[in-house]
Amino acid sequence: MSKGIKFTISVGIFALLGCCQFGCEQPAVKKTEVSAVPQQQTEEKTVVAKQEEVRAETSTTEALKETKSCCAVKKEETASHPKDKRSIQQIISALTGEKIGPDNSGDLYSGGLTATYTSPENTLPGEGKFGKLFKFLPIIKWYDPDHYYTPSMVVSGEFKHEECLMCHTVQTPGIVAQWKKSKHAVATDKGVVGCDKCHGNNHQQLYMPSWKHCGECHPEQKNGHRGGKIGSHTYAFHVSVVETPWQIAKPEAEVTACATCHAIAENRCDGCHTRHDFSLAEARKPNNCGICHTGLDHYEYEMYRESYHGMIYESEQHTWDWTKPMKPANYKTPTCAFCHMKDGEHNAQKASTINSHMGTAMVDRGAPKFKESRQNWINTCKGCHSPRFAADQLEAMDEAVKVSFVKWREAMKIVVDLYNDGMLDPMPSDLAPDYAGHYTFSLLGGEGRMYNVSDIERTSFEMLVYITNAVYKAMAHGAMYGATYGKGAFLQDRWLVQIKGEASKLRRIKALEDKVGIKHTAYDFWKHGEYTDMLLGWKRKPGDVDKAACKHEGENCLVE
Amino acid sequence: MSKGIKFTISVGIFALLGCCQFGCEQPAVKKTEVSAVPQQQTEEKTVVAKQEEVRAETSTTEALKETKSCCAVKKEETASHPKDKRSIQQIISALTGEKIGPDNSGDLYSGGLTATYTSPENTLPGEGKFGKLFKFLPIIKWYDPDHYYTPSMVVSGEFKHEECLMCHTVQTPGIVAQWKKSKHAVATDKGVVGCDKCHGNNHQQLYMPSWKHCGECHPEQKNGHRGGKIGSHTYAFHVSVVETPWQIAKPEAEVTACATCHAIAENRCDGCHTRHDFSLAEARKPNNCGICHTGLDHYEYEMYRESYHGMIYESEQHTWDWTKPMKPANYKTPTCAFCHMKDGEHNAQKASTINSHMGTAMVDRGAPKFKESRQNWINTCKGCHSPRFAADQLEAMDEAVKVSFVKWREAMKIVVDLYNDGMLDPMPSDLAPDYAGHYTFSLLGGEGRMYNVSDIERTSFEMLVYITNAVYKAMAHGAMYGATYGKGAFLQDRWLVQIKGEASKLRRIKALEDKVGIKHTAYDFWKHGEYTDMLLGWKRKPGDVDKAACKHEGENCLVE
Amino acid sequence: MSKGIKFTISVGIFALLGCCQFGCEQPAVKKTEVSAVPQQQTEEKTVVAKQEEVRAETSTTEALKETKSCCAVKKEETASHPKDKRSIQQIISALTGEKIGPDNSGDLYSGGLTATYTSPENTLPGEGKFGKLFKFLPIIKWYDPDHYYTPSMVVSGEFKHEECLMCHTVQTPGIVAQWKKSKHAVATDKGVVGCDKCHGNNHQQLYMPSWKHCGECHPEQKNGHRGGKIGSHTYAFHVSVVETPWQIAKPEAEVTACATCHAIAENRCDGCHTRHDFSLAEARKPNNCGICHTGLDHYEYEMYRESYHGMIYESEQHTWDWTKPMKPANYKTPTCAFCHMKDGEHNAQKASTINSHMGTAMVDRGAPKFKESRQNWINTCKGCHSPRFAADQLEAMDEAVKVSFVKWREAMKIVVDLYNDGMLDPMPSDLAPDYAGHYTFSLLGGEGRMYNVSDIERTSFEMLVYITNAVYKAMAHGAMYGATYGKGAFLQDRWLVQIKGEASKLRRIKALEDKVGIKHTAYDFWKHGEYTDMLLGWKRKPGDVDKAACKHEGENCLVE
Repeated sequence: MSKGIKFTISVGIFALLGCCQFGCEQPAVKKTEVSAVPQQQTEEKTVVAKQEEVRAETSTTEALKETKSCCAVKKEETASHPKDKRSIQQIISALTGEKIGPDNSGDLYSGGLTATYTSPENTLPGEGKFGKLFKFLPIIKWYDPDHYYTPSMVVSGEFKHEECLMCHTVQTPGIVAQWKKSKHAVATDKGVVGCDKCHGNNHQQLYMPSWKHCGECHPEQKNGHRGGKIGSHTYAFHVSVVETPWQIAKPEAEVTACATCHAIAENRCDGCHTRHDFSLAEARKPNNCGICHTGLDHYEYEMYRESYHGMIYESEQHTWDWTKPMKPANYKTPTCAFCHMKDGEHNAQKASTINSHMGTAMVDRGAPKFKESRQNWINTCKGCHSPRFAADQLEAMDEAVKVSFVKWREAMKIVVDLYNDGMLDPMPSDLAPDYAGHYTFSLLGGEGRMYNVSDIERTSFEMLVYITNAVYKAMAHGAMYGATYGKGAFLQDRWLVQIKGEASKLRRIKALEDKVGIKHTAYDFWKHGEYTDMLLGWKRKPGDVDKAACKHEGENCLVE
Repeated sequence: MSKGIKFTISVGIFALLGCCQFGCEQPAVKKTEVSAVPQQQTEEKTVVAKQEEVRAETSTTEALKETKSCCAVKKEETASHPKDKRSIQQIISALTGEKIGPDNSGDLYSGGLTATYTSPENTLPGEGKFGKLFKFLPIIKWYDPDHYYTPSMVVSGEFKHEECLMCHTVQTPGIVAQWKKSKHAVATDKGVVGCDKCHGNNHQQLYMPSWKHCGECHPEQKNGHRGGKIGSHTYAFHVSVVETPWQIAKPEAEVTACATCHAIAENRCDGCHTRHDFSLAEARKPNNCGICHTGLDHYEYEMYRESYHGMIYESEQHTWDWTKPMKPANYKTPTCAFCHMKDGEHNAQKASTINSHMGTAMVDRGAPKFKESRQNWINTCKGCHSPRFAADQLEAMDEAVKVSFVKWREAMKIVVDLYNDGMLDPMPSDLAPDYAGHYTFSLLGGEGRMYNVSDIERTSFEMLVYITNAVYKAMAHGAMYGATYGKGAFLQDRWLVQIKGEASKLRRIKALEDKVGIKHTAYDFWKHGEYTDMLLGWKRKPGDVDKAACKHEGENCLVE
Repeated sequence: MSKGIKFTISVGIFALLGCCQFGCEQPAVKKTEVSAVPQQQTEEKTVVAKQEEVRAETSTTEALKETKSCCAVKKEETASHPKDKRSIQQIISALTGEKIGPDNSGDLYSGGLTATYTSPENTLPGEGKFGKLFKFLPIIKWYDPDHYYTPSMVVSGEFKHEECLMCHTVQTPGIVAQWKKSKHAVATDKGVVGCDKCHGNNHQQLYMPSWKHCGECHPEQKNGHRGGKIGSHTYAFHVSVVETPWQIAKPEAEVTACATCHAIAENRCDGCHTRHDFSLAEARKPNNCGICHTGLDHYEYEMYRESYHGMIYESEQHTWDWTKPMKPANYKTPTCAFCHMKDGEHNAQKASTINSHMGTAMVDRGAPKFKESRQNWINTCKGCHSPRFAADQLEAMDEAVKVSFVKWREAMKIVVDLYNDGMLDPMPSDLAPDYAGHYTFSLLGGEGRMYNVSDIERTSFEMLVYITNAVYKAMAHGAMYGATYGKGAFLQDRWLVQIKGEASKLRRIKALEDKVGIKHTAYDFWKHGEYTDMLLGWKRKPGDVDKAACKHEGENCLVE
């Protein structure tokens, strides 16, 4: 078998022991100095600058050799089948006998569909700092209407509210019915708040309302909504997404869903008060919050639901009068808004104690500067719980978070040692470059990549971002099970065991290779592949992005 | 330590480089030809035909040697402890000092219970094409009553509805109470629809009603229910399960649960309208759909619940009047039935756009032949959303699905390269044979095994079936979080990283073995083990099953 | 790169083949004998007794050499950077240029925060058998109030109920409002059950009520609650947690959450009837049960919710009258309490059939001694289902559980073989010692560690405790999907594939090392690390804990 495709990994023992084995970019840190890495200096050596498109057709290994001035290794083959020009479609077709299909037949294929991914036909231009480097799918017009919405040209004419209703009771009966239940439909001396009030009268110049429009009648809510700092709803989209490289690092179709939550949170009021009844009661319940505040990197919704508060909400909420103000005497248990938007405060960030990048950064949680905000939390609990109980809960949370970081640091030591020893497989320089055209260790400098990274780096990333985070959110919301089992401490134990197991294998294999004189070079599939080649960074030229201007979580991206 | 059990892997470097190293069955594909593999020709050589039961008692390695005509390798030992005749019960007992117990003592064991799995005592004969090769647990009589139900003989006599009630108000008060709430209990000029109407009068000849019985009074619903094609509820059990090899490939106790959903969906009406109130309102809610349409391979329920539609359902549904027709003006958000069974259409398949084997096959989603069905979806959304919004959502879905397949193809290239290089560990020929007695690469030809397969094949299978599927279902149901984080694109990134990491290790270890002259042969535990030996395929003789007659998803199984 | 930190694994081929390679403690089991391992005899040789604190500052490798009397291996370096004295904080700081911070600045750090974990400042003394070896976080006073609660000294004076209300209507309006809805607020001839009845009158001597206080007026419920055996709510905390080594094996902050559920279940009544309305209806619903009976090791809540029973509960429960007794005619579907606390029986253990340590031990489920309790279950189902249906369900459950154990035993054989061959990486003796200062194979003797264990042992542990368990709970609660897909049989298939894949790699790497004369020694990170060094066992001196006195699930811990 497999005579047809002979494969050799023997890279020769005459490869020079040098920087090109493990990547030139990030030098090992000198033990005695504690100083910043002189990164800029070394980057230019390895960046693949001259290639617009590096495909399987051209030998990327060759290309790399040319640009790596410090290396002169004789490699026979470093990758899996670098000379096999066939697409995976052709290979699968060959193995299965399935025909290779035309793109628009509508037939089913288990592999042979010839369609390769191409950017969608119609896209809208990117915005902001990196705007020239990405595009949006058309759906963005609904999520950032102030910038992207254009009205339909199908219907023309000017219409008043009553006329709108005439057609739309037939065309879109759902939203008309919802509107009729809303406060907007209750006539005051100024009349009702009708369709035209929020969408305009000229049907070819209609607009989709953002917080700007709602804020005209609801200035207090608008001011709260706009009063947050970085990390709040106020900056969820334009600063935290558009101005940072999220939209560059992945194909637009993958980040559409990211943009959805981030855009709705900042731009629109119907993320919480959904159209067209715009209900106060709805926003008092935890459900709409849970659409975004869920999952791996921010388990607020799950943790609330696992807690007594959430369980009681679920079993009894249908018996509560949700028109009442959110006061302890009116609701047996709190919901998201009860604690995080007290008295209707629309700047939810005001209830924050510690900004720790959602639990992913270390901080002394008991530092004097958090004293007041922590006392505010104790006061929030006081409606039903004694201050001592609340303080004990906060302490239990702090201690659990501390331990989770200790565990993560144990893991990091193992991974950083591998990095310093050049034993990551692949090393950063063996990967496709990142959005800025650079090759950096994903776990430092706030990158924390989830793709285009070695397996052990990914696991370490998850251990920090998904688990220390989960421990924090669980303890903060009273989800005791979640804090240990499930998504918490015991899962972190598993990740730590996996990281150690992987580190052990990487070291044992390397020791064997050293012993027998094999000079392993990372396989080409780390750098190339049908998807990997789509990552925009691969095509990025140095200088396109000034990476230094864009640090953790976008704060510094504001500096032009 | 471990002197007692000396273990040697050294298989000698004098093993012939040949087909028996990587398996004889599937030849490497010639690069230039795109044609079906001549599989039939080579199969007979390797199949282990003469053994009815291959247990640890006999040296399976020896047995294999005899039957592999093309191989003459001298193997010292290829497996872990092939000569250790002790059962795991004996080993654990030896390590723990725990006694080995009799089977029916009721004592607890952490390993020493002597019970090995034996087929359950009473089973019912299999049905259909492969009927002679499998049996059902007795519970099948409730899921496929037309074929398997036999009445209890405990009570005899003929009874009318009123008499049934007399006993059953005491015996089974729950279902009597439920019936009383049902429309069946409301007397018309023909009287009520009582117990005897659906179950008969003679207590020793009672029957359990299937769609055939319900259809007598509800012909329109029955016709819808029976009007689907392959892939619909109409064929969920007898074609998609019974006529395909699902029931053969695993012990009956493991596929009981598969059969449950598939059988209820086809055979019975109380999967959606549970007994005995048979409520219309119940079937309008998403919950009963969610019992089957959930989890890894069809995340419909989860994705609905994560969406705005689902979140609003959960928070408000108790305030809605569920007796009203499912029209936009009556319900703020849709449920499953609202979109997929418009106007009570009981052929849910009519609302389908693209049959893509639940998102696991590639297809041009914008192909002309889907134009009409896609427009139908836009019309469905129109009750509340503009056609442009709906079309943008469909486009976002299409693009996200496309990217997820690109990522899967990148993974497949890596795994198929390993396969073609004979570097899968194990290769197909090193595994226990499949249900048909054959050794095939799990990822091609529609097998997609989840067990009895190498680790990297399993991960690739999951990447396709669990994740591209999840991306599709998430985008289709508006679960934006699910489409990226959680079960979506970012999880696919993780799987891709794992696949690359595993491929790298497999190649590095192989390169080392080549260098030092070790000829690795897959360990015996891939072929044998207490559970693996139960897989029926192992005992299958060539010719028992005409595999060629049973292709993907059962369509061709209809061809006798 | 990495010239600064030169790393060598070459441990020399002149290492003696002997016990110190794979650990001295647990000898390989002789094939013919089935007897307990003479563990005590060998333990003393390897235990690291003389070190109170083994930190990175001292070469632990050296230390280990001294204490291992049977070993005389020349090791150059066995660990990753054992000579690198820098903390991970210093390393990350060096790599990122981030400053190393003081502990109480409130600044954010991605690694450079100097805080190492130190035990929390205020803790309460441990209790029971191992009390001198652990402490509780202060929050324990709310979970075990009889032992730990001390009243606040802020307010003094004696108050009657009416006076309590005067302040607390302002201070804690929530609980006052809840109390007013409770039966306690309904005056009888003895008056209401007011604040003072449960908390006392002297504000500096207030108490938090446990079951002892509630039991004064509710003796029947108290007797049920106290009538269970080991494994029941009755012993959930003081026997199953405090008297066993849970509190020793991990830092107190990690086991706080364990203690929460276990303590509330035993000590307090408001785990099920939450304060201050202490509602009967609340406890009839499944939600509060679900706070603890959830997740990996006891999926009761999830499996109930996935079943028809749970789905119907969710969609309809708001229409049911929860004040009615839990009888089939009153509720369409059962809840937890309906089946497990029939007629209000507060000893939920009475409804048990088989004690199988929550599905993690093997037992003949059809053994004669379970006959009566199984019949009780059939009787419970009879309110709505025929006895034959119920019996068929029980059989399907039994068979599914049997298969899941067969699969686990196949995995165990593979892992035990590795253990006997000394090929686990690391072997038990290479790990930090357990809570008792010993080195034992985690999968035998009831340890089942989730941390401080090799990767393959952890996976095997999960396969048993998380998956056979899930199969059992799924089938027992009618969650058919969960029994196969998701958390059931098909996930077990995955774990089995992973275990085989890992075993294969461990054996291949070992064969290579043998061939080229590398003597692999487990890396130091298995024994040391910032978190691992916190594990109390590391500092344990032999004799601190009499491990023999503390066997599986705490039963024997009662023997002093």
